[in-house]
Amino acid sequence: MLTLYSFGPGANSLKPLLALYEKGLEFTPRFVDPTRFEHHEDWFKKINPRGQVPALDHDGHIITESTVICEYLEDAFPEAPRLRPVDPVNIAEMRVWTKWVDEYFCWCVSTIGWERMIGPMARALSDEEFEAKVARIPVPEQRTKWRTARAGFPKDVLAEEMRKIGVSVNRLEMRLAESPWLAGDEFTLADVCNFAIANGMQNGFSDIVNREATPHLVAWIEKINDRPACKTMFAHSKSEFADRGRKVTA
Amino acid sequence: MLTLYSFGPGANSLKPLLALYEKGLEFTPRFVDPTRFEHHEDWFKKINPRGQVPALDHDGHIITESTVICEYLEDAFPEAPRLRPVDPVNIAEMRVWTKWVDEYFCWCVSTIGWERMIGPMARALSDEEFEAKVARIPVPEQRTKWRTARAGFPKDVLAEEMRKIGVSVNRLEMRLAESPWLAGDEFTLADVCNFAIANGMQNGFSDIVNREATPHLVAWIEKINDRPACKTMFAHSKSEFADRGRKVTA
Repeated sequence: MLTLYSFGPGANSLKPLLALYEKGLEFTPRFVDPTRFEHHEDWFKKINPRGQVPALDHDGHIITESTVICEYLEDAFPEAPRLRPVDPVNIAEMRVWTKWVDEYFCWCVSTIGWERMIGPMARALSDEEFEAKVARIPVPEQRTKWRTARAGFPKDVLAEEMRKIGVSVNRLEMRLAESPWLAGDEFTLADVCNFAIANGMQNGFSDIVNREATPHLVAWIEKINDRPACKTMFAHSKSEFADRGRKVTA
Repeated sequence: MLTLYSFGPGANSLKPLLALYEKGLEFTPRFVDPTRFEHHEDWFKKINPRGQVPALDHDGHIITESTVICEYLEDAFPEAPRLRPVDPVNIAEMRVWTKWVDEYFCWCVSTIGWERMIGPMARALSDEEFEAKVARIPVPEQRTKWRTARAGFPKDVLAEEMRKIGVSVNRLEMRLAESPWLAGDEFTLADVCNFAIANGMQNGFSDIVNREATPHLVAWIEKINDRPACKTMFAHSKSEFADRGRKVTA
């Protein structure tokens, strides 16, 4: 039995969610509400002691880290439709892209997301409420991030992150101008993992991701949104967080 | 035919180097001299346009990124001794650890390494020589890193990186107190990839990595150094960079 704990179809939570739909695997989606800080509640920390989503429960085995979960689904369900190439050279190409999201692309977009969404959410709480929430966060680094978000990230940090987003968007556009999918001719986890971060940038970052500046990137985002699995995922997934995102960027 | 371009048995270059020796695969080691900035020369940029080692040439296919190369060797040579578990749950456990090195542990140790080794190397050059070297670096972020290293990293950056090294060392010690190897009962790429960064810390960071403070971590470092493949690797590998490291930290 598969249960996926996630924030719904956005950011890192989207990766295993879309992978599950693309692979046609039956699973129980368990929405963890970030606006209620559910991922820091004791019941969830019993599942993932780091208090982070996504987390996959497969027959009692807990798998964490979005990209690791995606590769786990490939290893555990070899008979389901593949999202990992067969040829070792192509697998390596795919992994360079999933690794790049995790080490570079995700972080700069995440900081801006935290500034726009987590900041206002944290400032809406009284000092007492906020401290009570922070005290439940198991990873010290995450506590610091919440405090910084509440105070507002320094302007030079935000400027540097926007620069990195520009570098990232350019890298994707250049690649997609020469290849239908990131790892070559096949739709793979390289696309799933980058889409998780890139989808929605045509709204929230429309000054740099748009049909004129990044035609190949926008076409790739639309092409993935048009896939049956992606449509089903968005139709069937609960996501208060995504709603908030839409409101903020509208 | 396999050729590995590397800086020799230290940091990220050590990962695929040790993996090749552990797997008993025949390969041609090609030492790229960092003190002569060989990785930024045109001949090497034809191999890896990003001007970074390690890079593996397998029958003309170029594989980059140290952790990706390690997994590639598992995919391409399934008949050689395994460094990746068979069970999907154990593979996921292994990947959480290799991912953690690449996203957290490697970076903080790397900054201190750059401060101690690259900084003096860059300051030994005249402005003209330095600018000529920097102009050949293909990745803009790397150019910035060279300039920062030459100027010396800001004190608060170094303090923050030392804090993160403390967090990292503690995480390894806690894990190795409960498990013989990082991903469980087997020696895997989790150990190879963390060893690449942790080995030598008992010298260069002896105030935090030592027999009293981190007995399990030191024992694990010694246990890996005692493996036949590791001994052969150090005996057969050219490494001017490692020599410099020993001099600086002696």
